[in-house]
Amino acid sequence: MIVPKFNLWLERDGKVVLSAWRIHLLEAIEETGSITAAAAMLEVPYRRAWQRLHEMEERWGIHLVETETGGVGGGGARLTPKATDLIARFHRFADGLESEIEARYQSTFAKG
Amino acid sequence: MIVPKFNLWLERDGKVVLSAWRIHLLEAIEETGSITAAAAMLEVPYRRAWQRLHEMEERWGIHLVETETGGVGGGGARLTPKATDLIARFHRFADGLESEIEARYQSTFAKG
Repeated sequence: MIVPKFNLWLERDGKVVLSAWRIHLLEAIEETGSITAAAAMLEVPYRRAWQRLHEMEERWGIHLVETETGGVGGGGARLTPKATDLIARFHRFADGLESEIEARYQSTFAKG
Repeated sequence: MIVPKFNLWLERDGKVVLSAWRIHLLEAIEETGSITAAAAMLEVPYRRAWQRLHEMEERWGIHLVETETGGVGGGGARLTPKATDLIARFHRFADGLESEIEARYQSTFAKG
């Protein structure tokens, strides 16, 4: 069975500033409270997750994550309100696109 | 300036059967009348173009290109009607999506 697929992202000067994957990374940090745990959840090395996060912060010019070091539980990471805002915007940006692309596929490839 | 980007393709069993790039390849063969010239136009090795083409033929179970060997001009390649049909369908599939995604970007990221 053939299925339509798509990917959606934002670029500035040819460089990715936001993508579905990067949104997953932010959501995984929100869910786990830790960059290390988020990297494990997405099955990428910690270093990759850290780099992508700092790239995003640099390219948007905003802080996305507040980290706490030490203390009980060994510190953690928490999204800033700006990161939460980016997540919400990206979801509105992509909302309904999957079903629209499926409908486009049905009307162009699935018949005739 | 941030710009929205997307990619669109079709898969069967996790394998790409059609994509914007593959459509460019077919169109380059149509335009140049040759797989070699099409590969040069897309700046990929001949072998890559040939493989992608044969993958597509195998995965769709149809002939996409008729090749002529020898003769005056040293042979050439011509799209079959089924290839032309796939190109037309893919364009209808993707038609207007770029401007829709731009409008989505404007209403979610460009303001506020």
